[in-house]
Amino acid sequence: MRKAKRQHRSELSDEELAALDAHWRAANYLSVGQIYLMGNPLLRQPLEPAHIKPRLLGHWGTSPGLNLVHTHMNRVIRRRDLSALCVWGPGHGGPAVLANSWLEGSYSETYPDVSRDEAGMERLFRQFSFPGGVPSHVAPETPGSIHEGGELGYALSHAYGAALDNPELLVACVIGDGEAETGPLAASWHSNTFLDPVHDGAVLPVLHLNGYKIANPTVLARLPEAELDELLRGYGHEPLHVTGDDPVAVHRAMAAAMDTALDSIARIQREARNGGTVVRPRWPVIVLRTPKGWTGPDEVDGLPVEGTWRAHQVPLAGVRDNPVHLAQLEEWLRSYRPEELFDEHGRPRPQVLACVPAGSRRLGATPHANGGLLLRELPIAPLQEFAVPVDKPGMTLHEPTRVLGDLLESVMAATAGRRDFRLVGPDETASNRLEAVYDASGKAWQARTLETDEHLDRHGRVMEILSEHTCQGWLEGYLLTGRHGLFSCYEAFVHIVDSMVNQHIKWLRTSRSLPWRAPVASLNYLLTSHVWRQDHNGFSHQDPGFVDHVLNKSPEVVRVYLPPDANTLLSVADHALRTRDHVNVIVAGKQPCFDWLSLDEARLHCARGAGVWEWAGTESAGQEPDVVLACAGDVPTQEVLAAADLLRRHLPDLAVRVVNVVDLARLMPHEEHPHGMTDSEYDALFPTGKPVIFAYHGYPWLIHRLAYRRTGHAHLHVRGYKEMGTTTTPFDMVVRNDLDRYRLVMDVIDRTPGLGVRAVTVRQTMADARTRHHAWIRDHGTDMPEIADWAWGG
Amino acid sequence: MRKAKRQHRSELSDEELAALDAHWRAANYLSVGQIYLMGNPLLRQPLEPAHIKPRLLGHWGTSPGLNLVHTHMNRVIRRRDLSALCVWGPGHGGPAVLANSWLEGSYSETYPDVSRDEAGMERLFRQFSFPGGVPSHVAPETPGSIHEGGELGYALSHAYGAALDNPELLVACVIGDGEAETGPLAASWHSNTFLDPVHDGAVLPVLHLNGYKIANPTVLARLPEAELDELLRGYGHEPLHVTGDDPVAVHRAMAAAMDTALDSIARIQREARNGGTVVRPRWPVIVLRTPKGWTGPDEVDGLPVEGTWRAHQVPLAGVRDNPVHLAQLEEWLRSYRPEELFDEHGRPRPQVLACVPAGSRRLGATPHANGGLLLRELPIAPLQEFAVPVDKPGMTLHEPTRVLGDLLESVMAATAGRRDFRLVGPDETASNRLEAVYDASGKAWQARTLETDEHLDRHGRVMEILSEHTCQGWLEGYLLTGRHGLFSCYEAFVHIVDSMVNQHIKWLRTSRSLPWRAPVASLNYLLTSHVWRQDHNGFSHQDPGFVDHVLNKSPEVVRVYLPPDANTLLSVADHALRTRDHVNVIVAGKQPCFDWLSLDEARLHCARGAGVWEWAGTESAGQEPDVVLACAGDVPTQEVLAAADLLRRHLPDLAVRVVNVVDLARLMPHEEHPHGMTDSEYDALFPTGKPVIFAYHGYPWLIHRLAYRRTGHAHLHVRGYKEMGTTTTPFDMVVRNDLDRYRLVMDVIDRTPGLGVRAVTVRQTMADARTRHHAWIRDHGTDMPEIADWAWGG
Repeated sequence: MRKAKRQHRSELSDEELAALDAHWRAANYLSVGQIYLMGNPLLRQPLEPAHIKPRLLGHWGTSPGLNLVHTHMNRVIRRRDLSALCVWGPGHGGPAVLANSWLEGSYSETYPDVSRDEAGMERLFRQFSFPGGVPSHVAPETPGSIHEGGELGYALSHAYGAALDNPELLVACVIGDGEAETGPLAASWHSNTFLDPVHDGAVLPVLHLNGYKIANPTVLARLPEAELDELLRGYGHEPLHVTGDDPVAVHRAMAAAMDTALDSIARIQREARNGGTVVRPRWPVIVLRTPKGWTGPDEVDGLPVEGTWRAHQVPLAGVRDNPVHLAQLEEWLRSYRPEELFDEHGRPRPQVLACVPAGSRRLGATPHANGGLLLRELPIAPLQEFAVPVDKPGMTLHEPTRVLGDLLESVMAATAGRRDFRLVGPDETASNRLEAVYDASGKAWQARTLETDEHLDRHGRVMEILSEHTCQGWLEGYLLTGRHGLFSCYEAFVHIVDSMVNQHIKWLRTSRSLPWRAPVASLNYLLTSHVWRQDHNGFSHQDPGFVDHVLNKSPEVVRVYLPPDANTLLSVADHALRTRDHVNVIVAGKQPCFDWLSLDEARLHCARGAGVWEWAGTESAGQEPDVVLACAGDVPTQEVLAAADLLRRHLPDLAVRVVNVVDLARLMPHEEHPHGMTDSEYDALFPTGKPVIFAYHGYPWLIHRLAYRRTGHAHLHVRGYKEMGTTTTPFDMVVRNDLDRYRLVMDVIDRTPGLGVRAVTVRQTMADARTRHHAWIRDHGTDMPEIADWAWGG
Repeated sequence: MRKAKRQHRSELSDEELAALDAHWRAANYLSVGQIYLMGNPLLRQPLEPAHIKPRLLGHWGTSPGLNLVHTHMNRVIRRRDLSALCVWGPGHGGPAVLANSWLEGSYSETYPDVSRDEAGMERLFRQFSFPGGVPSHVAPETPGSIHEGGELGYALSHAYGAALDNPELLVACVIGDGEAETGPLAASWHSNTFLDPVHDGAVLPVLHLNGYKIANPTVLARLPEAELDELLRGYGHEPLHVTGDDPVAVHRAMAAAMDTALDSIARIQREARNGGTVVRPRWPVIVLRTPKGWTGPDEVDGLPVEGTWRAHQVPLAGVRDNPVHLAQLEEWLRSYRPEELFDEHGRPRPQVLACVPAGSRRLGATPHANGGLLLRELPIAPLQEFAVPVDKPGMTLHEPTRVLGDLLESVMAATAGRRDFRLVGPDETASNRLEAVYDASGKAWQARTLETDEHLDRHGRVMEILSEHTCQGWLEGYLLTGRHGLFSCYEAFVHIVDSMVNQHIKWLRTSRSLPWRAPVASLNYLLTSHVWRQDHNGFSHQDPGFVDHVLNKSPEVVRVYLPPDANTLLSVADHALRTRDHVNVIVAGKQPCFDWLSLDEARLHCARGAGVWEWAGTESAGQEPDVVLACAGDVPTQEVLAAADLLRRHLPDLAVRVVNVVDLARLMPHEEHPHGMTDSEYDALFPTGKPVIFAYHGYPWLIHRLAYRRTGHAHLHVRGYKEMGTTTTPFDMVVRNDLDRYRLVMDVIDRTPGLGVRAVTVRQTMADARTRHHAWIRDHGTDMPEIADWAWGG
C-alpha cells in the first residue's frame, strides 16, 4: 500500500517534512535501541553480540506509530503554541514515549544521569526493561504520562478526565485497535456527551489501526472503512483518515489531518465560548492506519513480520546467537541513518529537534502530567456547618450520606469558580442521597434535553453515566492532572472497577517513590447502598468484598473507613478529601441511622481510628472487662449496641466493653500498615485473655486476616456477611448472616466462661427472639415491631 | 408522541391485534399486581390498604416494554415454530418476566403451588420481593432465564454465548438503554464478528430506549436518530425502529419489525448454510422506543411520571396511607380491564393465551434456559496420551500449559461434530502456549481475512477478543445453555471480570438449591502468565488476587487449584472439565517447569489435594519432622524444593517434611468448605508444634485466612507475593518478595529451635547468596548461573 490517502491539504514544506522525518527516524532508532542494545549505541562499531542485551524485551509493533503521533504533536504544539498532554493508550510501546522524551530533553531534566548525549543514550538503552531500570510500558516513571500502558481500556476515559475543567488544554489520546475492543474503551467514546466545550479542554482521539493484537487481527481494523466511519460518527465524531506506509505521504497526510482536526476543535470552542453552541458538537477523530512494526524487518526467517502480529514484540529474537538476525538488526538500525540524526557526541542534531517545542510545552514536561504541581487545597468549610447535633447517643436518626451531601454541596459551591472538584457516579447520586450537591452544580450533559429533565447542566460538575469504568477513568484522569473528586457507588458494583483501582494503586505506590512526582489528591470512594441494605434488590446487589480487594494492595496507599454514623462520616470524608496519594474507601449507609457521636466526639474517635465507647459498655474504670463487643460498620454497630443493651438488661453483672473501629487498618500490625496499632495499643483495647465478639460489616475472615498476629487472636470471634444473601428485610439480612443482636448475645454467653445458670435462660430468650423473627417476617413481610422500635437505652 | 412510525408492513388482523393487546394488558396487570398487591388480586372488591404490601419494591419502569417484547416473541415463536430463548437485559423488571411465565403456564409447571388461577395469582403477587419469596429481578428462580438482571452489562454477551453452536436457536436479547452505557455491553456489540451463521443460531438485539435510567436520561435515547443508526450500523447491524406510545400502532409496528427481522435472519442463515455467505452479514436490530412506565400513572402528586425517571421503580409510593394514591392505583389496575383478561377462577381467558406457544417452545420452558438438561459428558481421552514421562522428579522440564494444550486439542477434535466445547481468551491462546488447539479448530472470525492471517476460521470454536468481559459473557451464556468450555487468561487481568464471576457464582449457588435446574458444566479458568513470570511486563501485570476474590464466595461453588507441574495440571484440568456447577480456578505456569510427578503420582496427589512429598524431605518414617516446608503454586514449589535441597546439603540432620498443596480449599476447616481437611487430617500433615514455612503463590495472608482456626496456626509462617513488583528477572521477583530458596532456608533456621552453631553459618551463606544475586543482576541483567542451572538433586 505504498501510498497514503491525501484527504487533506498538506502545508508541509520539503524542509519541514525532512525535519519531521528526521525526528521520527530518530525516535524509531532510539526505540529499537532500547529493545536491543546495551552498548555501541551510535553504531560506531559493527554490531556484535556483546552489544546486545541478554534478554530481549519490549513491544516494537506499536512504537513507530506512537513516534509518528509524537512527532506530529510536536509540530502542532510548536506551531500553535498549544498546551497539550498525550495519553498513550498503546503504552506497551514504552520505548517510543521514552525516546521522544529523551529527544526533547525532558527525560534528562527528570533523570540527569540519562543525559542527552552518547553516554545518556547508552543508559537509556540499557535501563529499558532491565532489572533496576525502567518498565517496558509507559509508567509513572515516564515523564509526561498519566496513564500506565499495561492493562488496556482506560486511555480515553483518562484523556477526558484530564480535559475536564482545563479549557486551554488539548488532550491527544492514542487508542490502539486492540484496546478499542475492550468494554471500558468502547463505553468511553460516549464521554463527549459530557464534555463542555466552554469550561473543558478538547480531546483528540487518534485511533491507531495497526491491524493486529498479540496474535489476532483486530475487529476495528477489519471493518470496511465505511462501516468504521459509521461507528465513529455514531460515537459522535467526525473521522479523518491517515492511511499508508510511505513515510513522506503519511507525514503529509498526518500533518494535514492534525491541522484539520485542530482547526475544527478551535472553531467548536470559539463558537461555544462565544455563547453559540447549543447542541453537542461533532468532534474530530483521526484514524491512523499504518503497518504494525512499520520500518522494521519485512521478513524474518522467511516469514512476514512488518504489518503482521509477528511484529508485536521483538521481531528478531535470536540476535545474540544468530548472525543472520544480528546482521538484520544492524541493517534495520542503520536504515534510520543515525549519523544524520546524532552528532559526534550523540546529541540530536538541530534538524531532528526542529519540531520540538520548548519548556513546559513539551509533552514530557507539561505540568498537567504531574498534577500535584497544580494542585490547590480544597476549600472545605468547618464541619460544624453540617454536623448533626447529638446530646445523647442514639436519640436521633439521620441518613449519613444525606448529611455528607451538604458538605459536598458546600465544596461544590466553593469551587464554582476554580472548577477543580467533581463528583462522579453511575446514575446513583440521588439514589445515594447526595442530591444536595445539585444546589451547587447540575449534572454535566451536552445532549438534547427535555422538559421533564432535572438538574442537567451544560456546565455541570456532577458526572453520571451508567458505567463504573467510565466514572473511574474520568476521576483518575482528573486527579492525576491535579484536581479533586469523589466517586459514589453502590458497594456491590464497585467490583466492576477492581482491576482499575489495582492499576491506580500501583501507579500511586510507584509515584510515591519518585521525588519529582508531586503528590496528587486521593481517589475517594463513597460506597453506599451497601450489603446490609440491599435487602430489597437481593443477592446480586450484596457484596462487601471491595475492602478485601484493596487491602491486598500497597498499605502506604490504601485506607478503609467504616464510619458508624453521620458525624463520623463527615469527619472521615473531611480527612479523606484533604489527603494525598491515597485510595480512601469509605463505606457508609444512606438509610436512617442512629446518631451516636457529636461532632467533637466523632473527630476524636476518627482520629484514633478505633476506641472504646465507654457510654455503651458496663465495664468499671480500671478493671478489665469480661468480654469485648467490637464493631465496624453502621449496621454492625447498631447490632452491637442493641446487644450491649440486651446484656445490660439481662446480665447486668457482666462487664462488657464496646469497641468501635472506624479505620480498619488499625487492626493490622504496625509494621504492616502505617495506621496499624502497636501490640500494646491493641492489647489495651482488646485485653489478651478476654473473648472478643466482633461484628464486622463485610466478610468475617477479613478481620482474622488483619489481626491474626495479635496475642489475643485465639479469643477473637468474628461475625459478618457470609454470602447468605437474598431478597428480604433489613433485619432478616443480619439474622441470616448471624450478625444480629440476639446472636451476638448468644455468642457472648457461649464464649465467656463462668456466667452461670442465669445465662442459660438468657440464651434461650435470645434464641426464642430469633424464632419469633422468622415467624413474623413469614407472616408480615416486615421486621418485628421490637426491631423497628428499638432505640439505645429505650 | 401518540403515533407510532410504521416503517414496516403490518400483517396483523384486528383479531390478532386484539389478542396480542389482551396478552400484553394481562402481563402489565400482573406486573403491577406483583409490585403492589398481597390480596384481592382480581379486584373483586374495591382496593383497600389491607390489600397492599407493607413494603413496595420492584421496578415498574421497564416492565411494560418487556411485556411487549414477550408478547410479540410469543407471536413469532408460534407463527414460525421457532426455538427461542430470550435474555432480559433490563432484568430489574422481574415482574414482567414472571407475569409472562405465569400466563403461559411454565411458572405453575415449575412451581405448582403458584397455580394458574386466582389462588396462584395471589401467591404470585405476594411472593414477589417478599421475604422467603422471589427476587425482584430476573434470577435463577425465574423459569426461562439464563441471565440475572441485577448487575448490568452482560445481556448481549450472554445472548451470543447461548446462540453459539445452536444453529436452530433464536436468541432475542432486550438491551436497556441504561445497560447500553456500560463498557461490557458496548464491547459485546462486536460479537457479530464472531457469530457463524452456519453453525450458530441468531441473536436479535432489541434495544429498548425508554429514555431514563434511575435518575438521568440515557445517552443512546438522546442521540439524534440518524446518529444512533450510524452507531448501530457501525456495530454491524441494520436498525428497525418501533417508536410510539399508542398501543395499537406500536403493536402493528412491532409485529412488522419482528417479521422483517426474522425474515432477514432466515435469509442470512439460508444463504450461509447453502454455502453462499463469504462476508459478515448485517444482522437486524430492533430499536424499541416507548415511554418508561408506559400505561402507568401519567402524573403523581402533580409531577409527571410516565415517560420520566420517576417511573423507574414504584410510581405510587404512598398507597397504604394516601387515599389518593390508593385510588390512583386502583384506576391504573382497572385500566387493563382485568375482567376481560381473567375468568371467574382467575385463569387467563383464551384470547389472552391466543398468542402463547406450546410446550417447550414457550420462553419459560425452553430447555436451553435450563442447560443442564441438554448437557452431555465431555469426551476426554485418557490422560496417558498427554502425560509427560517422569522417572525421577525434577530431571526434565515442560511447559505445563503446552502439555494441557494437547489435551484441549483432543477435546476440541472429539467435539468437532457435536460442537459443544469452546475455548475463550483475550488474544492470549498462543501466548499462553495452548496453540495445539488450532490443529483441531481455528479461531472464530467472520470479518475480512488477509494472507498473513493464521488459524482464522469462519467455523472455529476458539474465541479470541481483547475483552475479558466479552469472553466471560460468551462462556457464561454457553455453559448455562448446556455446553462446556474453558477461559484462559493472564492472571492479573482476570480481575477485569471480578464482578462478573461474582454474579455467576451467585447464580450457581442459587441454582444448586433449585431442584428443577439441572447441573451445568463448571466455569473453568486457566490463569497463566502469572505473577511470578510477569517479570518482563512488570508491576501492572503482577496480581495474584483473583483467588482471594473468589474464595470470599460460596464454598459449595468455588474451587482453586495450583498444580505444580505438567502432569498435575493435566489431572486437575481433567477433573475440572468433568465437574458441574462449580467455578474452578486453575493457576498454572506457561514457562518451562520441572516435572515432579508421574501421571499416576499426579492423580493420587491431586485426588488428595495436599500431601507429603516423601522423596523431597528428610524425615524418618514414623517420626515427626523438625520443620515443614509447604508450597502451593509452581514457582513456590520450585523454591521450596531448592530450599529442601540446600537444607539436605547444609543441615543434613534436620528432619524436613515437604508438603505440596494443589487444592487450596483443603486448608480450610472441613465445616467451611466441602474440600476442607478435618483437624486431624491437617494436624497429621502439619504437626501442631512444628514450624511450617509455607511458600504460597499469591498474597501470603490468604493462607492465614484459610488456616487461622488450626491448632498449629501460631507456628505457620507464610511467604508470598507482597506487591513488591517491578520489571526484573524471574528469580529477582521471588527475592524481592522473600519467597526465594535462600530466604526460605533462613526462615527455617530462624523458626526452628535448637539448631546450633552450624545453622548460624548456613544462615550467613544464604544471606551471602542473596547479596551475590543483587550484584549479579545489577551487572548482568540476568539470573545467576547457580539459579539457571539448578536442578533437583543436581
